[in-house]
Amino acid sequence: MLGGLFMSNCLIAQSGGPTSVINASLSGVIDAAINNKSINKIYGSIYGISGLLNDNIIELNPIFEGHKDLIDVLKTTPGMYLGSCRFKLKNESIDASQYKTIFSVFEKYNIKHFFYIGGNDSMDTALKLSDYANKYNIDIKIIGIPKTIDNDLFITDHTPGFGSAAKFVATSILEIAHDTYIYDMESITIIEVMGRHAGWLTAASALARTHYHDAPDLIYLPEVPFSPDAFLNDIKAVQKKKKNVIIAVSEGIKNDMGEFITASTSTKDSFGHSQLSGTGKALETLVAVQLGCKVRSIELNVLQRSAMHIASQTDIDESLLVGQKAVESAINGETGKMVSIKRISNNPYSIEIESVDVHLVANKEKLIPRDMINSEGNNITQELINYIKPLIIGEPVLPYENGVPRYLDIKHLI
Amino acid sequence: MLGGLFMSNCLIAQSGGPTSVINASLSGVIDAAINNKSINKIYGSIYGISGLLNDNIIELNPIFEGHKDLIDVLKTTPGMYLGSCRFKLKNESIDASQYKTIFSVFEKYNIKHFFYIGGNDSMDTALKLSDYANKYNIDIKIIGIPKTIDNDLFITDHTPGFGSAAKFVATSILEIAHDTYIYDMESITIIEVMGRHAGWLTAASALARTHYHDAPDLIYLPEVPFSPDAFLNDIKAVQKKKKNVIIAVSEGIKNDMGEFITASTSTKDSFGHSQLSGTGKALETLVAVQLGCKVRSIELNVLQRSAMHIASQTDIDESLLVGQKAVESAINGETGKMVSIKRISNNPYSIEIESVDVHLVANKEKLIPRDMINSEGNNITQELINYIKPLIIGEPVLPYENGVPRYLDIKHLI
Repeated sequence: MLGGLFMSNCLIAQSGGPTSVINASLSGVIDAAINNKSINKIYGSIYGISGLLNDNIIELNPIFEGHKDLIDVLKTTPGMYLGSCRFKLKNESIDASQYKTIFSVFEKYNIKHFFYIGGNDSMDTALKLSDYANKYNIDIKIIGIPKTIDNDLFITDHTPGFGSAAKFVATSILEIAHDTYIYDMESITIIEVMGRHAGWLTAASALARTHYHDAPDLIYLPEVPFSPDAFLNDIKAVQKKKKNVIIAVSEGIKNDMGEFITASTSTKDSFGHSQLSGTGKALETLVAVQLGCKVRSIELNVLQRSAMHIASQTDIDESLLVGQKAVESAINGETGKMVSIKRISNNPYSIEIESVDVHLVANKEKLIPRDMINSEGNNITQELINYIKPLIIGEPVLPYENGVPRYLDIKHLI
Repeated sequence: MLGGLFMSNCLIAQSGGPTSVINASLSGVIDAAINNKSINKIYGSIYGISGLLNDNIIELNPIFEGHKDLIDVLKTTPGMYLGSCRFKLKNESIDASQYKTIFSVFEKYNIKHFFYIGGNDSMDTALKLSDYANKYNIDIKIIGIPKTIDNDLFITDHTPGFGSAAKFVATSILEIAHDTYIYDMESITIIEVMGRHAGWLTAASALARTHYHDAPDLIYLPEVPFSPDAFLNDIKAVQKKKKNVIIAVSEGIKNDMGEFITASTSTKDSFGHSQLSGTGKALETLVAVQLGCKVRSIELNVLQRSAMHIASQTDIDESLLVGQKAVESAINGETGKMVSIKRISNNPYSIEIESVDVHLVANKEKLIPRDMINSEGNNITQELINYIKPLIIGEPVLPYENGVPRYLDIKHLI
């Protein structure tokens, strides 16, 4: 009972686009918080920061405490158990009311530790809230937990979520190759992979290659300006050697004017990001018109960020670890930090989890270095393949029910 | 050595579109033929009937005999190990030359058993070749082995290949649902599933439903004429109850004039070309224009027929069995037959493999009976769910290498 005097509550929120394993990080936070004697209640904010602004807060202890089985199922449930938002916190100088609302909710629930799981934009939120707390001497520890399939966060060796998406992309392209090679006719298959600015996930397509085939034959990334003429010439060069050409292309490729190669559109989200669709379709039409051969485009779409059934076990394990580490950091008094992965060695693969200043991460995008892409800009180097390979290793053994994976009940979101 | 006098050779070919498990049937034929004392050499025709017409025949014994490990890997390799073709054999009265070429190749390799793995069109080929052999008293047993993700063959309770595609569709839609429910905003997600005439695979989307969610909320099949007005009203009705509407639609839906719903849109891509759109994209545009809410279409594309990593173990097992049974039938002197699956009981699920007259199967399409679809034509009945459910049960344990499934080398096709 004496310990109760020092006890405090924690709150967790998730944000941005989902990954297969963002709930594994949530699972890590919940597990560590339940087992930590200085944490009393564990709250979840429904729909990210929106939940804080609207006081849409649920208590997680009644759901998960004493239910290790549910924490385990949460670990392998895709989507976001707490829901998400795409919300950009304004600077305090522009609108202080949002900060006041958020910190009044922190106070209401006696929150002393806030864990925010997300990507670039979420790290910006973690930064702003921790700066605000410092400025006004508010006793709350704020820790960012990285996630993004884009792998574009600074400092951390890679991001939780990337390995699973990469494994889905590589496996799917391998299976598409098996599908494509069955016909004795010329064909071109264009596979569109997610990634607005960074090409890491598209680069993972190279992991589809085995000793018996080298698909994708061509890889186009946002880091290199895209030339339609060079693209058509690249295809013709491959066609001299083989009938079926398989191409991986990032949704975010741009021409030398910096304009996206896409069928549409001018709409923008609340972060000012262009909404992209149809890069593969645009290239399919280009090939059909210019080369006149059989061509198909395939958009991997949201499956690449939600296909938990083919997630990477390495990624699941690491996502859990960063969640657990976040609790440890907060309890140790750290704030304004992001949990980060440091690669110790590649062969055998080993990592350490550390925490870094969130100011070093927020509002930056880590692109693929140009020297990890071949000089023609249509393939990646062995060094980049070696970097990605350990991240997709290992297959989870999921529980299945009626032939589909058994995931955690998300009725509270529906 | 005496047995050698009675020994004969067999030939196998694959045809039509691939499934995840068509190689499991090939594996079953090879395994049974290797272990059958009356069969000497096992040949494969490369690219289906085309291989027979062009004498593109390979001997399989050197590859698989004494290599049970490779037969096992073949069993879980997607695509078609022998390659495929889309080739319609003309009637003998119109062109007898194709028959003469094919039967001269049978004679050249001393083929006494021909196994043809495929769908409707392939059963037509098996029918024509066996009729021809009967007519001219040629001693060759011809057995069709069913495969199609469309599940549209007559007589057989279901088709090998359907269960795995159904499991992929159900699992993907469950994962898409988890992805979709994370945002607190109105959205409509349209998932396009393969099936030009029969809606079985789209119906399998209902297997995504669990105790905590009922996506897909609406299901549209080719068996029921599609009305855009009814479709929009259906969506509005669902929106009264929930924010996120998830819809499964067959690529083969048609209006009441029998025309496919695959309009081209007026949008132009970066290169000034008009975009041709699929069914899902056409409905996406319809919803965006008429309802003005956030809408996304997802085409599951070729992954539904090649994603062996999420195949149904029941389907793999049955596909192997039909391959083995084909060899048994041929050795027992049967010809002009298709191997068929008979469901003995649904709970517990049990089947028997039999052989049926290929004339009863060829050139027919089994559609979903109208009474297995609800009266509004936007959902399926529990009876249909109960029919599909046992077919998607079981998960294969695949070998993995470098983070992707280890499939059989198909260099001979590339």
